[in-house]
Amino acid sequence: MRQRVKPDAGTLVLVADLAGTFVFAAEGALAAMRGNLDLLGLMVLAFATALCGGITRDVLIGAVPPNAIRDWRYPAIAFTAGTLAFLTHSLLPPVPERGIVTLDAAGLALFAAAGTEKALDYRINPFIAVLLGAITAVGGGVVRDVLLAQIPAVLRVDIYATAALAGSLVMIGCRRIGVPRTASAFAGGLTCFVIRMIAVWQNWQLPKAGAF
Amino acid sequence: MRQRVKPDAGTLVLVADLAGTFVFAAEGALAAMRGNLDLLGLMVLAFATALCGGITRDVLIGAVPPNAIRDWRYPAIAFTAGTLAFLTHSLLPPVPERGIVTLDAAGLALFAAAGTEKALDYRINPFIAVLLGAITAVGGGVVRDVLLAQIPAVLRVDIYATAALAGSLVMIGCRRIGVPRTASAFAGGLTCFVIRMIAVWQNWQLPKAGAF
Amino acid sequence: MRQRVKPDAGTLVLVADLAGTFVFAAEGALAAMRGNLDLLGLMVLAFATALCGGITRDVLIGAVPPNAIRDWRYPAIAFTAGTLAFLTHSLLPPVPERGIVTLDAAGLALFAAAGTEKALDYRINPFIAVLLGAITAVGGGVVRDVLLAQIPAVLRVDIYATAALAGSLVMIGCRRIGVPRTASAFAGGLTCFVIRMIAVWQNWQLPKAGAF
Repeated sequence: MRQRVKPDAGTLVLVADLAGTFVFAAEGALAAMRGNLDLLGLMVLAFATALCGGITRDVLIGAVPPNAIRDWRYPAIAFTAGTLAFLTHSLLPPVPERGIVTLDAAGLALFAAAGTEKALDYRINPFIAVLLGAITAVGGGVVRDVLLAQIPAVLRVDIYATAALAGSLVMIGCRRIGVPRTASAFAGGLTCFVIRMIAVWQNWQLPKAGAF
Repeated sequence: MRQRVKPDAGTLVLVADLAGTFVFAAEGALAAMRGNLDLLGLMVLAFATALCGGITRDVLIGAVPPNAIRDWRYPAIAFTAGTLAFLTHSLLPPVPERGIVTLDAAGLALFAAAGTEKALDYRINPFIAVLLGAITAVGGGVVRDVLLAQIPAVLRVDIYATAALAGSLVMIGCRRIGVPRTASAFAGGLTCFVIRMIAVWQNWQLPKAGAF
Repeated sequence: MRQRVKPDAGTLVLVADLAGTFVFAAEGALAAMRGNLDLLGLMVLAFATALCGGITRDVLIGAVPPNAIRDWRYPAIAFTAGTLAFLTHSLLPPVPERGIVTLDAAGLALFAAAGTEKALDYRINPFIAVLLGAITAVGGGVVRDVLLAQIPAVLRVDIYATAALAGSLVMIGCRRIGVPRTASAFAGGLTCFVIRMIAVWQNWQLPKAGAF
């Protein structure tokens, strides 16, 4: 194989995917510490939050072993994030809330775009690829909350999975009208990120039954 | 392809399967409203209640992507049922309890028969096909209750999964003694439905430890 | 097929695997009785505790249908253990705590070794095979606790999954330096068992955040 001179689209997606894994794993570790879990529980929650969304997608589309199991870098990064969160928890000043929300929205956008892309690669119906994009983005958080014996936050509050669905939808719409793959993924990710940030800023909520 | 003059067995199973999906999705949506989830949570619960049983069966027997992901009609029907439940909740008079129980028993019977049939198609051992029939029938409800952070109702109360197991068992017994496929599925489904309805009517319960 | 004169390594692993299934199923049944579930719930918990770890591993590495679904002896043993636990619960004197802990540690060691072995057979990266060994060993208990709407005990207390990880690690290390397969599996299982027993005896705990 010849040496690559510049990173191609696949490399960029991989870097972005690993960055999202790091952010989500750190969030899982923080949730574990709030839940008074021990070090092992913290590592499990870091792993589950970062990787269970992608694992669910891969199992459903038949891409087994899932990437998170086949490629050692994914669990390695998740555990590194968990270790750093554990070690620095009492040393560093807490990360400002706005920073966490921004990083989390970036991870959400990334995972939604990557999940939709992979589902389309496996020739899944576009309507269902939208669902799989959202499952990739929020699945890890659902598993984290189930393991903490809580109703998943994503089901109760806030515009969160909805932002992932919207990003995934925009991405597929772009591809339908002929926009190139990378540009479509970028448009979808950006849509997800912007909707999520505005939703936090404006405190948007989805309607509940009985509200109208 | 030539036009079909009358619906064949496959079409009947499909129609029945989609009807079961509709009923279970509406039940999931009602549970979401009782749990004070938002619209997204309602849709997730409609999807999960209707389709997670079949998805679990398909993943276990290696039929990936599962039908619920491969065939857009399944999620479309689940989301339609969720939308209707959300919109009509405060407008219509509540469905009478007896109607819900009957519809639910019909869905249970249908899913148990369809799940057993599919497991047998994949050359699964008959003893385990019985289990897979019951998993298809009750798996969605288990996921729904786990997402609501509750002990699954099916594990605690009532003759419910037991009716599915009985129906599945009758269906396999019929096939063993040479009854044709469609008649076997019908006998199994009817057994499940009748046992479930009598159990509700007579308030049958399974024994618990310490009861004897 | 010629008759086998003496049990080979595969037979020994199978016997050990089925013994572990029996022990874990009985534990699941006891948890179900403490949780006031009915007979069906008891059977589901016996099945889930004994077999969901292995099912998760098999689904992740693409070995579908999982052994627990393909080989009727696994569910048969799980249900037998559940039935015996149900019937003898009020008749027999309770098993002494020390006996349960020892049996459970044996099951843990067994499942960790068997899980690692199978992951390596499927050419999974060794670092991830360690994770899969631990998932096999503790996955059933996690599903059991989730079904009981509790935070999985393995995440909160005690050296438990850690013992499985250590055993799995020793097993892979032995194979790397050229120790034969059976001896490596034995060394790994023994490591897991000994660490678990010492941890119970000395009341070892993993650190939690804020503890240092």
